[in-house]
Amino acid sequence: MTLKNDNPSFVLHGVYNTQFDERPIPELEGDEVLVAIAKTGICGSDVHYLQHGKIGHFVVEEPMCLGHESAGTIVKLGPKVPADAGVAVGDRVALEPGHGCRTCVQCKGGHYELCPKMTFAATPPFIYGTLCRYFKIPFDYVYKLPENVTFEDGALLEPLTVSVHALYNLGGIRGNDTVLIFGAGPVGLLCMATAKALGARRVIAVDIQKDRLDFAKEYAASDVFLPPSKNEGEDNEAYSERFASALRAELKVPASGPGSIDLVVDATGAPVCIGAGLHALRPSGTFVQVGMGPSTVPIPMFIVVAKQLKIIGSFRYGEGDYQTALSLVERGLVDLKPLVTHRYKFEDALDAFKLTQAGKDANGKAVIKVIIDGPQ
Amino acid sequence: MTLKNDNPSFVLHGVYNTQFDERPIPELEGDEVLVAIAKTGICGSDVHYLQHGKIGHFVVEEPMCLGHESAGTIVKLGPKVPADAGVAVGDRVALEPGHGCRTCVQCKGGHYELCPKMTFAATPPFIYGTLCRYFKIPFDYVYKLPENVTFEDGALLEPLTVSVHALYNLGGIRGNDTVLIFGAGPVGLLCMATAKALGARRVIAVDIQKDRLDFAKEYAASDVFLPPSKNEGEDNEAYSERFASALRAELKVPASGPGSIDLVVDATGAPVCIGAGLHALRPSGTFVQVGMGPSTVPIPMFIVVAKQLKIIGSFRYGEGDYQTALSLVERGLVDLKPLVTHRYKFEDALDAFKLTQAGKDANGKAVIKVIIDGPQ
Amino acid sequence: MTLKNDNPSFVLHGVYNTQFDERPIPELEGDEVLVAIAKTGICGSDVHYLQHGKIGHFVVEEPMCLGHESAGTIVKLGPKVPADAGVAVGDRVALEPGHGCRTCVQCKGGHYELCPKMTFAATPPFIYGTLCRYFKIPFDYVYKLPENVTFEDGALLEPLTVSVHALYNLGGIRGNDTVLIFGAGPVGLLCMATAKALGARRVIAVDIQKDRLDFAKEYAASDVFLPPSKNEGEDNEAYSERFASALRAELKVPASGPGSIDLVVDATGAPVCIGAGLHALRPSGTFVQVGMGPSTVPIPMFIVVAKQLKIIGSFRYGEGDYQTALSLVERGLVDLKPLVTHRYKFEDALDAFKLTQAGKDANGKAVIKVIIDGPQ
Amino acid sequence: MTLKNDNPSFVLHGVYNTQFDERPIPELEGDEVLVAIAKTGICGSDVHYLQHGKIGHFVVEEPMCLGHESAGTIVKLGPKVPADAGVAVGDRVALEPGHGCRTCVQCKGGHYELCPKMTFAATPPFIYGTLCRYFKIPFDYVYKLPENVTFEDGALLEPLTVSVHALYNLGGIRGNDTVLIFGAGPVGLLCMATAKALGARRVIAVDIQKDRLDFAKEYAASDVFLPPSKNEGEDNEAYSERFASALRAELKVPASGPGSIDLVVDATGAPVCIGAGLHALRPSGTFVQVGMGPSTVPIPMFIVVAKQLKIIGSFRYGEGDYQTALSLVERGLVDLKPLVTHRYKFEDALDAFKLTQAGKDANGKAVIKVIIDGPQ
Repeated sequence: MTLKNDNPSFVLHGVYNTQFDERPIPELEGDEVLVAIAKTGICGSDVHYLQHGKIGHFVVEEPMCLGHESAGTIVKLGPKVPADAGVAVGDRVALEPGHGCRTCVQCKGGHYELCPKMTFAATPPFIYGTLCRYFKIPFDYVYKLPENVTFEDGALLEPLTVSVHALYNLGGIRGNDTVLIFGAGPVGLLCMATAKALGARRVIAVDIQKDRLDFAKEYAASDVFLPPSKNEGEDNEAYSERFASALRAELKVPASGPGSIDLVVDATGAPVCIGAGLHALRPSGTFVQVGMGPSTVPIPMFIVVAKQLKIIGSFRYGEGDYQTALSLVERGLVDLKPLVTHRYKFEDALDAFKLTQAGKDANGKAVIKVIIDGPQ
Repeated sequence: MTLKNDNPSFVLHGVYNTQFDERPIPELEGDEVLVAIAKTGICGSDVHYLQHGKIGHFVVEEPMCLGHESAGTIVKLGPKVPADAGVAVGDRVALEPGHGCRTCVQCKGGHYELCPKMTFAATPPFIYGTLCRYFKIPFDYVYKLPENVTFEDGALLEPLTVSVHALYNLGGIRGNDTVLIFGAGPVGLLCMATAKALGARRVIAVDIQKDRLDFAKEYAASDVFLPPSKNEGEDNEAYSERFASALRAELKVPASGPGSIDLVVDATGAPVCIGAGLHALRPSGTFVQVGMGPSTVPIPMFIVVAKQLKIIGSFRYGEGDYQTALSLVERGLVDLKPLVTHRYKFEDALDAFKLTQAGKDANGKAVIKVIIDGPQ
Repeated sequence: MTLKNDNPSFVLHGVYNTQFDERPIPELEGDEVLVAIAKTGICGSDVHYLQHGKIGHFVVEEPMCLGHESAGTIVKLGPKVPADAGVAVGDRVALEPGHGCRTCVQCKGGHYELCPKMTFAATPPFIYGTLCRYFKIPFDYVYKLPENVTFEDGALLEPLTVSVHALYNLGGIRGNDTVLIFGAGPVGLLCMATAKALGARRVIAVDIQKDRLDFAKEYAASDVFLPPSKNEGEDNEAYSERFASALRAELKVPASGPGSIDLVVDATGAPVCIGAGLHALRPSGTFVQVGMGPSTVPIPMFIVVAKQLKIIGSFRYGEGDYQTALSLVERGLVDLKPLVTHRYKFEDALDAFKLTQAGKDANGKAVIKVIIDGPQ
Repeated sequence: MTLKNDNPSFVLHGVYNTQFDERPIPELEGDEVLVAIAKTGICGSDVHYLQHGKIGHFVVEEPMCLGHESAGTIVKLGPKVPADAGVAVGDRVALEPGHGCRTCVQCKGGHYELCPKMTFAATPPFIYGTLCRYFKIPFDYVYKLPENVTFEDGALLEPLTVSVHALYNLGGIRGNDTVLIFGAGPVGLLCMATAKALGARRVIAVDIQKDRLDFAKEYAASDVFLPPSKNEGEDNEAYSERFASALRAELKVPASGPGSIDLVVDATGAPVCIGAGLHALRPSGTFVQVGMGPSTVPIPMFIVVAKQLKIIGSFRYGEGDYQTALSLVERGLVDLKPLVTHRYKFEDALDAFKLTQAGKDANGKAVIKVIIDGPQ
């Protein structure tokens, strides 16, 4: 495979200030491999950096190449990639964009996603992202794509893996569970697809936009629910409780026992959804928060205590999650294709970001996932 | 054992309206036993009923005998108590004051504390409490007291069991854990004692009253911490974070790895404590809420997600908890005696309630636990 | 619903000695319900009693009505069946044939299947079985059948529930697991169906009879494997290891990592299968023994230690298992119908037993499950 | 700290053939540190290599330096040891003698002890051991010793960690458990010490030598039991059951419920002990096998199924175990000193091995642990 000798990169220089820079081709060290990027999906966090130059305490202080949802082709192996590593030049692979230090308590304990020295693509202080020609990565963070999995699928494994981490790795979803998911954006939809693929008895989708619910129903939800409006003067706590009761009544969900809600996943961060989820859960049920939302959220602690609920935070993904996600796609249990609504060339990357931010295209069609080609 | 033929009872007739009523001696059905009450501890919830006539949705609508922390002597066995049940007339026993329906999903699944038909002493609609001469109870809800465990110890097993449920049954405390406990009232103190007895490496007590911390240190805590004052204009979130940092700095607690905080138990319900606890926890740590507190509590969800914390609600106690608590007392690992600060005769029960409410006696001595004798 | 006034019963009086006895219609106590039996499946254990008059230490010492895999119609409610129990005269129900004492540590701790006082149909010293017109049972041990679940399905829920207990309740099967099952008799086949229904990535069936494997492949297995022959002079340990290696090689199963064997279920009790299963498992994998087999089994403990395997014994079924099994059937994920190969009238019950024992019918057709009608 | 310029090493050249060789001082790469060995304990496996030149499939094919239970002083840091690693020249440290590849599923999943590419001191094909002057090791596999922990303690952390892994990491021991331990050799004794330190209610020691039991009782066991003799003609299964019954009767251990045996650890590998342990366990109890024993062991599978037991294999140690063990020693909960019965100079290493093999010294004193000084 002939390597090109340049590395065009889509780089954020400041708020709403991007450039196509020429960056050096990364030198491989140790057990790294070099990947020629084929497809990259845009994530809300990429757009957030474009708009604000930061996310929480991650502040962009140097020009940073954007992009972290990618797949491509291995073009070179580092000097210490083991012979039996199962990676070779020419392999089509998905990229897991972050890796830990390998030596801390978290990394050695099976939770490298919590490593305080995590290196994560397009996340300060790491200034490298995948919207470029060549990206380097340790060999054990690429996943070979089977023939029936495309580069686009490979790029979208990243958000799918977020949902696998939330539902499967941390949330402990089991076959026959009844699962309630708040939010029908990309992550919420992938949570629904994951729940369905892993044998959920019912997958109940909640969103405030009816067209999103329609899509969710067609895509992976068994049931959908549009929340009631808030009454004038009603406080959030009372509203959450009424919201949960209305959901259970409309969808005939018992409060406990078979068929009651075993698992709630919130992909909105909206306090009202979080409250409704806790009210809707069965005794001893599990609530998983995926995605950040507001930093402080009021929760009905009385309910958490009285029903002995468990609330778990889910951050990115960790050991085994990419392989699980890939298996679900390879087996045809999760179909990522319907989520790709728009595609752009590398040189039009900024337009892709703008469209993602807008949420609807010029024809009024909702944007779910936008894919950008690698540089030609 | 000769039974007396009356059943004097301390009965709540309305807010701040109690009477000594003569109630019938309970008729035993099936596998129940009759217990002559020897000692009863007063709980905050008893006082709350006296003051308000209700707790949440538990509203006292008929005259209700108070009291639920008790020990006594078995005086009679019901017709269907099994021969091999290990209970006999004359046995000194502690009483577990609530029991489930035995047939629902929760009861059969190992969590009878979540039974929607729970019968619990001195909790409406059940109008029987233990501040009387004779109380009836299913045979499998009494626990025989070894010789070295007194009736007072037996009465105080009840709040100790609350802490065993929180730390051990649900919180999953393990030997060598570092445990942080908010609140040095009776339940908080018993949580500290439980943590110590179960092999905690450090038991860190937090309270806003220095004299309570002094007692905690002497009783069961390895370390104590008095929170910093809130700065003017500081919001709760910033304050909680600063509170947690100060605690970790003063007590030299690392943020992660060996010695970092594995388990937090909040026995205050105060939002600032809950926030500080979540900030103080190590990655993948566990937070247990015991006791109710305000119905809605703001929590730093960003931290819950970024550290993948688990929040668990703990309600009363369940299978195995009384036996564990009793074993800790029998083995001398938990000493309940220092908690009993005041004692009353049955006919002075109302004074006992007033003292508990006051929190200090006439000599300025802090009230921890008040014990009332059974009727003579 | 008019009750008939007799209760014909198929009763074992001694080895190979059965009679149709007229027994009294059971009197209902407390919260029991009376069920008119519609269909009963024959289990290997029923036949074992017929042949030997005992199973292990369960010895038939009084005439015992046989049968425990049944479904029927509720014809009467006991005096204390709760109004909100969700059971009514006329309900079509499956029967869970055993129940515990409700007061021991096991019953209250969520494992009534381990109750030392278990009452189980057609298991001494309990002399009542379901091969009769009317059988009484506590209301919380019947499960209402949805419209799309037949009485035959309801009867076969019993062995399906055995497999749900083994794979789901105790074995902890998760979506995307690779599962290896030894034995393609009724329980093994139902384990395969359960694994598939709960989202297994691969369900590998092993049996020594090719026609059983053919059925398994058609029914629920994704892969089948016929063991190699044992070499002359080869000891069981070497043979088990070679057996496991051949399986992994033929089916391209990796030794560890994605796609390796997460869960083994043995439904044969054959030492060679147990050994091969332990050799085939991935590091940290789980082995579940379901069904008894020989009392003493040699296991390769070196392998258990070197790979840190877990071996779990699974006994009958417990809380939640019937509901899970019923949900899988109702949702169409498990189809019980293909397993019913032969049907008999009540008066021909002995022929049904003989056929089950023979294993093949007069036409050479393999017997999987035989169903007997209730008395007309 | 001045480095000496030689590296004398105690090297196995063949069965019963050892030499003091001069080996090069290791060159540090990456994040390794160089440790000057102060003390090394002798393990049964070291002696096994001396006697047989192999252990199972680990065959010594090149001269191999022996020793893997060691503590010493850091004398040099590799070029990539992180500045915040918390290790410095001069630190007194214990050495964890094995480390994984850091990139496989096991290493990233929290179980590096199962890494197929494990590098372990004095274990072929790795030919380096710690009976030498200088040993190199990745910085995250050394553990700084607090002032109150000696080098000898540090060396003995290794076998203590084996028991922490077995009881705590895998066996899930909890405060108040009743624990039964077979074997009062070094590992068994350390299992008892660990159980006691982690809050066990009772620690029952079983051994066939009375003097070992006497030591165990004084050291860490709460109860001891000398097995009954086997009757003539009695098979192992019947003997195991009788053995377990006698133990429970003599020590008044109930079969289930509070005080029954929650956890069994076998450190003998003897089939009769394994059988007795399974018979003695309470329903749903856990059995942990630590140490290898015979490759094939007959187990009473009927009992495993009927009581739903869990059997777990425990191999070496993994993430967190060294830190836990160190904490137990630092806190004074485990005293390692009584185990050191004999001490040798480096030049007398062969004598130390011979003594360990003999098991008793010239005065008839039992050998528990022998410590060898580093080269002067």
